[in-house]
Amino acid sequence: MNTTLALEYARASQPRSLEKLLELLRFPTISAQFPSNQADFDLCTGWLVKHLKEIGFQRAQIFPTGGPDVVYAEWLGAGMAPTLLIYGHYDVMPVEPVSEWKFPPFEPVVDEKRIYARGASDDKGQFFALLCAAEAWLNTGGLPVNLKVLLEGEEEELSPHLEEFIRQNRDLLRCDGIVIADMGGLDPMVPLVEYGTRGNCAMDVTVAGPTKDLHSGTYGGAVDNPFNVLVRLLAQIQDGETRKIIIPGFYDRVKELTPSEKALADEVPISDEIGLYITGAPVLGGESGYPLKVRISSRPTFDIHGIRGGYTGEGVKTIIPATATAKLSFRLVPDQDPDKISQLVSDYLTRLAPPTVKLTFSLTGRAAPATSNLDSPVVKAANEAFLRGFGVPPKFVRGGGSLPIMTIMQENLHPDVLSTGFGLPEDGEHAPNESLALEQFYRGIAMMVHYFHCVTEIR
Amino acid sequence: MNTTLALEYARASQPRSLEKLLELLRFPTISAQFPSNQADFDLCTGWLVKHLKEIGFQRAQIFPTGGPDVVYAEWLGAGMAPTLLIYGHYDVMPVEPVSEWKFPPFEPVVDEKRIYARGASDDKGQFFALLCAAEAWLNTGGLPVNLKVLLEGEEEELSPHLEEFIRQNRDLLRCDGIVIADMGGLDPMVPLVEYGTRGNCAMDVTVAGPTKDLHSGTYGGAVDNPFNVLVRLLAQIQDGETRKIIIPGFYDRVKELTPSEKALADEVPISDEIGLYITGAPVLGGESGYPLKVRISSRPTFDIHGIRGGYTGEGVKTIIPATATAKLSFRLVPDQDPDKISQLVSDYLTRLAPPTVKLTFSLTGRAAPATSNLDSPVVKAANEAFLRGFGVPPKFVRGGGSLPIMTIMQENLHPDVLSTGFGLPEDGEHAPNESLALEQFYRGIAMMVHYFHCVTEIR
Repeated sequence: MNTTLALEYARASQPRSLEKLLELLRFPTISAQFPSNQADFDLCTGWLVKHLKEIGFQRAQIFPTGGPDVVYAEWLGAGMAPTLLIYGHYDVMPVEPVSEWKFPPFEPVVDEKRIYARGASDDKGQFFALLCAAEAWLNTGGLPVNLKVLLEGEEEELSPHLEEFIRQNRDLLRCDGIVIADMGGLDPMVPLVEYGTRGNCAMDVTVAGPTKDLHSGTYGGAVDNPFNVLVRLLAQIQDGETRKIIIPGFYDRVKELTPSEKALADEVPISDEIGLYITGAPVLGGESGYPLKVRISSRPTFDIHGIRGGYTGEGVKTIIPATATAKLSFRLVPDQDPDKISQLVSDYLTRLAPPTVKLTFSLTGRAAPATSNLDSPVVKAANEAFLRGFGVPPKFVRGGGSLPIMTIMQENLHPDVLSTGFGLPEDGEHAPNESLALEQFYRGIAMMVHYFHCVTEIR
Repeated sequence: MNTTLALEYARASQPRSLEKLLELLRFPTISAQFPSNQADFDLCTGWLVKHLKEIGFQRAQIFPTGGPDVVYAEWLGAGMAPTLLIYGHYDVMPVEPVSEWKFPPFEPVVDEKRIYARGASDDKGQFFALLCAAEAWLNTGGLPVNLKVLLEGEEEELSPHLEEFIRQNRDLLRCDGIVIADMGGLDPMVPLVEYGTRGNCAMDVTVAGPTKDLHSGTYGGAVDNPFNVLVRLLAQIQDGETRKIIIPGFYDRVKELTPSEKALADEVPISDEIGLYITGAPVLGGESGYPLKVRISSRPTFDIHGIRGGYTGEGVKTIIPATATAKLSFRLVPDQDPDKISQLVSDYLTRLAPPTVKLTFSLTGRAAPATSNLDSPVVKAANEAFLRGFGVPPKFVRGGGSLPIMTIMQENLHPDVLSTGFGLPEDGEHAPNESLALEQFYRGIAMMVHYFHCVTEIR
């Protein structure tokens, strides 16, 4: 076991690794559209199993779930060394608005600096870097750790079937630590390690009024317009001045940062100037009383993602729509519980709704907030690995996104979790023209080659 | 000139009239999609010109406008008798949501009672009844009046090019009265004549925040979500309790009904029970302090028709959308001015908007409110014609919809206007599965055969 050999192998394999990644990016595995696109998922998981076997895993196979299949692989040749589990997700976000893509989202384009494709950064390009690092060790004498791989296909839908799969396969998945690369640094010189993630409570709220769309000339003034009612309800979720959520009880279980967490946060070079540059917003927003770096990671938020119903095309169609459905979500922080929050929201809106409409709710996704142990070798080893792979140590932050896997794995398998990644703010994850920097992809492979060794040294 | 002969001709022609109407309904003339569907419009106007010549008009031709073509026809064989102008619109509403149609919207289906197709009631089926009545006279010795026909193709878009066309063709269109059949009765035994229409001010309001869609995990709390801002702005247009519009100055030029108008309104048998039955709403809504029949005809209203942007498909896509665009409109009553209202709305919302977003407005349609003279022969003759054609006299109401033609013609040609129609509340104008009752179609033809005679008698 020789890090130098593995590093050389990884470097020499860069062109082939890129080619293989482009193959993977061509599968349009949009989980929001599953199962109508089952065939695309089957082609992708088949490709992954074949690839995992080719690069040296002893076992690679597909496991069914109630949703998209899980891909599992393992190499257990390191004897008494620790066992790590790589988690990644091969599903991707929808591609709307399609017209804003400069090229088809599933026909990857590579220029001098970046790989452009849906999933390039989130998460195919990132977990693939981990697999490339494993491949480098497997083809130069074997890994210093035992390695398991779990790739799921509905992370973007908040992993509704993963918990059941993990419960039923506790022995198969048993490990000392989980490694997830599904995030990014602030810039190439500021890599990040997440020691916590926000939870999520996503729901659809439907306001139903008349039994069919009505002409707003003939019937305007007769009935409450479901859209008029919906905007009034939604406007009462958040204070217009402080941007605090005004649903009674919402903040009851929210923990403020500890002094040592505040000290870690102080080290993170996130300024309002950076925030403005990255988002392009005229002025930053969010909850009053907290700096940007805390607002985006350690405070709960409320977002409306879209409102379905009525007429949204060109020109004029003056109808009173029969229904209006808002898609919304709340990011949650420790110790908020997504089920309790969902109940608070539906109780609150139901209380506010006038008798002129009927309100229905549908919980479309849930994830509990989570934190991981900063002192475990699995997390600590990232410090040295980034220093060697990127030339700088990472900053430790709480992440704003949600990783259902983190909570689920912690509850069921109790391992330590390293959550990190090689993306950058300009990647445009979830947006049109998503991309991943080539340099970050190759440095990510090198960092992980080091990590597999470092984690055994610290231990 | 013999009404009996014309009536017999109309009755004998019913099967052929229906066949011809079905031909007309097959043209998918959706004005919201013009000019991408220009070819469909050209086929429809070509068909209309041919048909008008076939049924006996001396002249029938197409006139270009900046939008869809206008079809004009005339028969001026009645010497010194008054000249009427029939107005109709051959364009139709969009057909979304397509999935709710029980059959393709442009493949008409006829059962024992109804004709189902987009445009059956609004307005192809209705103006076609007027043409059938003209045909009956033209083929049994000639009409008792001189008759002009003006069919436009963008009424559903609030007729943006019609005013210019009318201005430029004042001599061609000169007439003593205009007859419009584009509305309906409460039921077959309660036909209606409109002596006024509401105006309309339709606009798109766009809230723009970040320059691209952002991941709500990574960026939630950093920027104001344009949807969150938009619902707060829209919620401040209308009071949640009284449903009054709270934009300063909005009601400044609104006239209350006169005592004689109130007396006419009292005669109209519109009850809350009927309103609930027709709309299917759990409870009626609208401005407090006014009965249903006044709310839907003589009071201004505010309706949101849809909100574009973000993600509205199945599943979860947790983004902060870059923009949110609301399509909204205000129905206006005398003497509100659509341009002034549009300015009030944009000033008000601009003042309320936070600096975290940029607001833009686009006026998508405008129509002034209008009233017509209840004492003119053109309006009065409808009383006797309905009595003979339907067996009952009509009720006189102010209509809730908007008829730009009414204002434009009044301003430019000063004629009296008869606005009536043969639709029924269950027709589903603007909604999926639009239909027209066969009985109403045939009775409408008979009523108009009488009307052409009655209008000369009263005069």
